[in-house]
Amino acid sequence: MKFPTTTWRADLVAGAVVAVLLIPQSLAYAMLAGLPPQVGLYASLLPLLAYAALGSSPVLGLGPVALLALMIAQALGALPAGVSPTEGALVLAAEVGLLLAAAALLRLDALSSLLSVPALRGFESGATLMIAAGQLPVLLGSAAAGFTLPELARSALHGGFGALSAAWGVAAIALLLLSRRAGSRLLARLAPLLLLVAAMALSAFTPAATGVAQVGALPSLALPLGLPRLEAALWLQLLPAAALVGLMGFVSSLAVSESLAQRRGEKLLPAAEMRGLAAANLVASVTGGMPVAGSFSRSILLHEAGSQSRWTLVFVAAFMFLAMLMLAGPLAHLPKPVLAATIVVAVLGGFSLRHYQDAWRYARAEGLLMAAVSAVVLLWSVGAALALGVVGSIALLIQRTAQPHVARIGRVPGTQHYRNVERYAVECRPEVVGLRIDESLVFTNARGLVDVVLAHVREHRARVGLPQRVLLLMAPVNHIDVSGLTALQDLHAALAAEGLRLEFSEVKGPVLDRLKAVGWLEHYDVSLYLSHHEGIQAGEHALRPSLADHDAPGQL
Amino acid sequence: MKFPTTTWRADLVAGAVVAVLLIPQSLAYAMLAGLPPQVGLYASLLPLLAYAALGSSPVLGLGPVALLALMIAQALGALPAGVSPTEGALVLAAEVGLLLAAAALLRLDALSSLLSVPALRGFESGATLMIAAGQLPVLLGSAAAGFTLPELARSALHGGFGALSAAWGVAAIALLLLSRRAGSRLLARLAPLLLLVAAMALSAFTPAATGVAQVGALPSLALPLGLPRLEAALWLQLLPAAALVGLMGFVSSLAVSESLAQRRGEKLLPAAEMRGLAAANLVASVTGGMPVAGSFSRSILLHEAGSQSRWTLVFVAAFMFLAMLMLAGPLAHLPKPVLAATIVVAVLGGFSLRHYQDAWRYARAEGLLMAAVSAVVLLWSVGAALALGVVGSIALLIQRTAQPHVARIGRVPGTQHYRNVERYAVECRPEVVGLRIDESLVFTNARGLVDVVLAHVREHRARVGLPQRVLLLMAPVNHIDVSGLTALQDLHAALAAEGLRLEFSEVKGPVLDRLKAVGWLEHYDVSLYLSHHEGIQAGEHALRPSLADHDAPGQL
Repeated sequence: MKFPTTTWRADLVAGAVVAVLLIPQSLAYAMLAGLPPQVGLYASLLPLLAYAALGSSPVLGLGPVALLALMIAQALGALPAGVSPTEGALVLAAEVGLLLAAAALLRLDALSSLLSVPALRGFESGATLMIAAGQLPVLLGSAAAGFTLPELARSALHGGFGALSAAWGVAAIALLLLSRRAGSRLLARLAPLLLLVAAMALSAFTPAATGVAQVGALPSLALPLGLPRLEAALWLQLLPAAALVGLMGFVSSLAVSESLAQRRGEKLLPAAEMRGLAAANLVASVTGGMPVAGSFSRSILLHEAGSQSRWTLVFVAAFMFLAMLMLAGPLAHLPKPVLAATIVVAVLGGFSLRHYQDAWRYARAEGLLMAAVSAVVLLWSVGAALALGVVGSIALLIQRTAQPHVARIGRVPGTQHYRNVERYAVECRPEVVGLRIDESLVFTNARGLVDVVLAHVREHRARVGLPQRVLLLMAPVNHIDVSGLTALQDLHAALAAEGLRLEFSEVKGPVLDRLKAVGWLEHYDVSLYLSHHEGIQAGEHALRPSLADHDAPGQL
Repeated sequence: MKFPTTTWRADLVAGAVVAVLLIPQSLAYAMLAGLPPQVGLYASLLPLLAYAALGSSPVLGLGPVALLALMIAQALGALPAGVSPTEGALVLAAEVGLLLAAAALLRLDALSSLLSVPALRGFESGATLMIAAGQLPVLLGSAAAGFTLPELARSALHGGFGALSAAWGVAAIALLLLSRRAGSRLLARLAPLLLLVAAMALSAFTPAATGVAQVGALPSLALPLGLPRLEAALWLQLLPAAALVGLMGFVSSLAVSESLAQRRGEKLLPAAEMRGLAAANLVASVTGGMPVAGSFSRSILLHEAGSQSRWTLVFVAAFMFLAMLMLAGPLAHLPKPVLAATIVVAVLGGFSLRHYQDAWRYARAEGLLMAAVSAVVLLWSVGAALALGVVGSIALLIQRTAQPHVARIGRVPGTQHYRNVERYAVECRPEVVGLRIDESLVFTNARGLVDVVLAHVREHRARVGLPQRVLLLMAPVNHIDVSGLTALQDLHAALAAEGLRLEFSEVKGPVLDRLKAVGWLEHYDVSLYLSHHEGIQAGEHALRPSLADHDAPGQL
């Protein structure tokens, strides 16, 4: 990575802007993960350098993120006796790093596409609500805690409520929201850090926070270098959670860095992103950190603040180091409700009911899936929600291909263009049934093909006349698998039984290549036309164009 | 079901022909399932009447089948102490019947399409080989036994070998094969029954079968009516196997009855098939039988012998009842190697390496999947093989949609038809990049769309000229899900960043309806053309055809 001699000033400014946001977020997300706040600071130092060295996006806001913090908290909820959450987080980060490195080596980055947009958004929105809900007790000075709404509700029944804590929390939220409404971008960006400093000062020099939970004295802030605990049982226990954290970290980072790259006209390399994330997590695991990924809010901020290269992250790390030295003492006095307020305002800023509405309006089933994934995050667990998202998306995909749309088509008068007889006023010729097969012929729908085609033939007979041929417009058929091929053979036999010839038009290159490779068209004597128009016009006894002709460009 | 006053003679003859094949098969498949031979006879009586009353195919050869017999044998391999295989088989049949009835009620018959042709054929071929291999020890007078090749091999190491048994077995196989080669269809069909009668006579009246395992004296052949054992633990233990047997029984029956219905120009109702199978299995469970389904070989025979209605099955049951009365005594003397020979010849007649070759030649991946499913049947278990078949088919489907084919297209000179520039000599206009998107836009491929389109735009710039518009031919796009819609939004933004307009042509009705429902085209100001040709011809400043025009048939 070359030093950006021309753009370093822009990168330095962007680094400062992001560090101002990262300082409160790193502390808050560590707390959210059930870890001491300094772990968030450690995770915001050297891991950034590792990503800068191996990643590919100049605007990925790497570091602790809220979504992963929730998943980490769930994973560390049942550690064996004698293992501290801090130690668990290091093992988790090591596993996430190793899994991502293995996935990068095996080129598994494509697997991330199994998470559809509704599944991903449903997961993120559900997690956002759960994170905010989980901070409510901290905000209100209650001892309630839990990773799901039912757990939270159960523990809230027995928890108390602190009026002074609630006052701190509500005041902090009000100030943060007001700063956003003030209309000054600079103020809105500085607000979380200013609030932190003001709260620490108020709490340290006045009795205003007496009785309110505070962060407490930190141990020495010397970076705790060392390998994570190497216990097979512990690693095995955390492995499933590490797989989820790694997948979610990669997919959510890729989603934001890819959309920014498209906006910036840059090319993003998913494999490089994977390597960068792997390195960052491995470094986090040996420098006292926690699993890290790219934050949505900080990535946007990097882009808006004008970051031009990954050196920006180096500057962010330098600012974080300075902040760490300066905050070491005062941090002890920070009231926890203020940190909780920072979290709630940060995550709820990204929540919107519109995502659900948009999905629901466009496709009911996908909107339902999205809501179901969110509900499972809130009521059950992040692992079950991710599984539902992947399985549900695949089920919807299969269900869609299983109900093929087959249209009887006719000629749009005066053109060589053919459209659905039910939607357009078109011309049909009695001797040919023209059908458009609107789906790849694959196992999920193959069994229904013969019935659907025969139904259209009956319709044609009743409305247009006695046909001699059935001409299938194959342009929308992108694949034919073995089951589909078997169905075409059945169709050929069924049509032959009614004295009808089977013919194809506009078969696409890749599909045609396969049919030719096994000599299918010759074997079943299926005529083939370059265009549907040509096929319809062809006389009853037209010569079957030789297959070779179709290969020779320009002969038609 | 009305009595077929005009066709009853044809049905009676077909019934006799099939009964001749069913007698030896019912005995042999009961033995294959690890059950006493009379269970096969019981399963060939009243269950046939139940299917005749509720099913829909006039040519489904219902009764015991080899494939299910293998699965039943595996399921009954680990029964708790005190439960006989016969009792287990009754519980299994009851569960299969109830599961199929529930599936019919919930209209789950469509789920059967999850079993692709390669998965089904791979499973059947593997099972065929396993059945034949499992009969080898019986044929050769060895005590070896097992449900998989490794089990069989292990037990064969310790088993003996009976020369006289082997002589019976080899002679029986030779006679059966010779009868098939003789060229007389009648002889080939009668051969298994003749062989059985001859072997029983030879064994009863001469010492030729001394020392060879024989079927042994049967208990009273009075039909053992009664409910199966109602023990929750037993039912729970057999439930997974029952689900597999039910699925496989339904899918394999449907495959043969559907293909025969198409050949006969009849309409088959999958839901009625499911009800018929459910009823047959429930009746089997209270009349001393075993799980039943439609046999491939007997169904073909029913069709060839001229069966016209489901009354044929009633006649088959009547013949089976007569046979049962007559066979009761002599059956005790039947040498087991002869029954084994019947099984081996029957199942291997349906095996062919050509299925593997065909699949492999047409699509490597599907050929591999088929071979893998067969291997898992032979080496591991039928349950794992079915799971591999379903999951593997879905994985291949996803992998195919994940790699969309996008073609840059130009006009075939003198036509209004557009094809791939790399396959045909076509004309392109510099100001428009014409692209055909050869895949539905769904979550598995959405992430790659922008990159692929931008690559084609660069190619167009380098080879044709400076474009102002990108016109996507959407005819092959059968669906756009929420992820795909998000990708189109990203594409719109990415093209706008390069000063290019995004336009669509030939968007199909169902896809267009959805885009219009959310006002997508207006919002992103995407022009829409009825045909690609019209879109290419449209001038730079062409008016955007109003969406309403497209709805009004015949206005263009």
